[in-house]
Amino acid sequence: MTMMNSIALQDGVLKSIQAPLPEPQAGQVLVRSLACGICGSDLHIARHSDDVLNFFRDMDLLPPGTDNHAQVLLGHEFCAEIISYGPNTQQELPIGSRVTSVPILLSQDNAGVGVTPGVGGAYSEYFILDEALLLPVPNHVPAEAAALTEPLAVGLHAVNRADIRPEDTALVVGCGPIGLAVISALHRKGVKNILAADLQQDKLAMAREFGATADVNPKEQDEVAVAAKYAGSNRLVIFECVGIHSLIDGFVRRAPANARIVITGVHTTPSTINYAYATVKELDLRFSYYYQPDEFKECLDAIAEGEIPWQLLLTGKVGIDGVGDAFAQLMKPNQHIKVMIEPWRKGLLEVY
Amino acid sequence: MTMMNSIALQDGVLKSIQAPLPEPQAGQVLVRSLACGICGSDLHIARHSDDVLNFFRDMDLLPPGTDNHAQVLLGHEFCAEIISYGPNTQQELPIGSRVTSVPILLSQDNAGVGVTPGVGGAYSEYFILDEALLLPVPNHVPAEAAALTEPLAVGLHAVNRADIRPEDTALVVGCGPIGLAVISALHRKGVKNILAADLQQDKLAMAREFGATADVNPKEQDEVAVAAKYAGSNRLVIFECVGIHSLIDGFVRRAPANARIVITGVHTTPSTINYAYATVKELDLRFSYYYQPDEFKECLDAIAEGEIPWQLLLTGKVGIDGVGDAFAQLMKPNQHIKVMIEPWRKGLLEVY
Repeated sequence: MTMMNSIALQDGVLKSIQAPLPEPQAGQVLVRSLACGICGSDLHIARHSDDVLNFFRDMDLLPPGTDNHAQVLLGHEFCAEIISYGPNTQQELPIGSRVTSVPILLSQDNAGVGVTPGVGGAYSEYFILDEALLLPVPNHVPAEAAALTEPLAVGLHAVNRADIRPEDTALVVGCGPIGLAVISALHRKGVKNILAADLQQDKLAMAREFGATADVNPKEQDEVAVAAKYAGSNRLVIFECVGIHSLIDGFVRRAPANARIVITGVHTTPSTINYAYATVKELDLRFSYYYQPDEFKECLDAIAEGEIPWQLLLTGKVGIDGVGDAFAQLMKPNQHIKVMIEPWRKGLLEVY
Repeated sequence: MTMMNSIALQDGVLKSIQAPLPEPQAGQVLVRSLACGICGSDLHIARHSDDVLNFFRDMDLLPPGTDNHAQVLLGHEFCAEIISYGPNTQQELPIGSRVTSVPILLSQDNAGVGVTPGVGGAYSEYFILDEALLLPVPNHVPAEAAALTEPLAVGLHAVNRADIRPEDTALVVGCGPIGLAVISALHRKGVKNILAADLQQDKLAMAREFGATADVNPKEQDEVAVAAKYAGSNRLVIFECVGIHSLIDGFVRRAPANARIVITGVHTTPSTINYAYATVKELDLRFSYYYQPDEFKECLDAIAEGEIPWQLLLTGKVGIDGVGDAFAQLMKPNQHIKVMIEPWRKGLLEVY
């Protein structure tokens, strides 16, 4: 049996393992990972392993019989290279083509690539994709840029969920990768007032590069009150991009009438909220999670056409033997936006 | 000073009082209450007096200096008769005309008629309205029918907030006055599947009269699972019309993907919720509270045109000296839908 280098998350602990090289089934393709982003949700799974697996089990999203000690092979933000095709494939893209894809296997009961136990991910040297979902990456787009398509699609989808008009005001709370992706999508949609909020001043400066028209540090000012002033009689849309659901009650209390709150990220801990404020102000809470293939494609195109300063998102890169150490660093307060794993090489976390 | 019979809620206790006859100011009109419905929110204020006043104060909805011992003159679902006009009025409707109105005084800092302390309500013999908001009640519409315009408008507004399509499925949980109003509005909009849910079998029978196409008793079946089957691949919209916000978490856990949950009623106690379910299923929580004047007018017209079997809503009536006793009865489990106060006469609660 041919083996490959892989990284498994088990019982909340990340470890380097040797895993069997996967074999593409009907409609599938074997790819080699060229670059894979470390996502906040990967860190969340590591931190709250039992919570997340219990939740997925409750939602019927786990293969039958999966217990909480199951290995998860992470990695769902990637660029990869086609190695070989499985049976019943069209093979329109030559072997060696660089591709990205929405991280799902329609051919395998909609399993999540890099999430569902028993399904490979792009932290590993090799993994499996559906041929039908492959998107070729243009030659001039570096692998690490193509790997950013996924978080950018999360942001675009959140903006589409908001149904925001150009004259409305957006408040984006949290300027990590998802917040910046939201800001970029709002900017591309021509939204006039895009207010970025973050506790770190350098992230606010970066938000400006992605299209924020104003910024506010919640340590200094009430970001919702500032945004409400910009909105005036138009609608305020608040994007929760911190991934901490306990923030929602505060937004609900402070939001002006008719505001929408779009929530990104999955936080499995129950929160407390006083809905009376939402009722009297007729708020909408809209939860955003899964982009559609056309949104994913739109983001790859935007990268290829130079509409997104993606270079600014990349703050670190690491080889396959440095991922455990990188996770440990990212679990503590840090200055990183996106750390890219290059599973085909060795090397500890380097800052760009 | 001319006095009138009135009913004041103070420190959660309802009492008959003599109050000064109010005087209409510029743009206002003095009216005599012909019929006024007892609303679930009136009972809620009586039960949770401190909570509600603290919440209103926090929302900046109370006149400055109002403490928790303030008297509230209840009554915001009414039909009334014009007695006299204040200064600067057009006086297009003759004295004696029967009218209804959205229960707000634009002329008095948007105070709520029958809610804001210091502002009269229709439980009293006489109260004040804005001339600009008066709607004449057609001669063939009884006063107790016109008084139902307000709760019907609450239901219509909730349906408008839902943005529901005829092919979608509605699940209306709670078939009290608001639930029935929602069902009636859904029916008038031509929504195909309208599933009514209530613990009381007779309320389900009544829901059918208002347009429900199916019904389910949550004691016997999971109402959300039943509704999801009706919805199939179309959207499910759940209307929370019980007024108990702790139900929301259960709807969020059980709702199918892409469902909308429209919440009516104000419940001032904090609730616990696990938002992860809402995120992974991309739910919308839409909170509904204040109808617009055109929605109010649409409901009065629907009553006048015989489109709503409003007679079925009326289950009891009471004179001004029986209101305290009626409240005591309504605080306990009961079979009433809507009890109508006729403040111009004496008499204990009678069942229609």
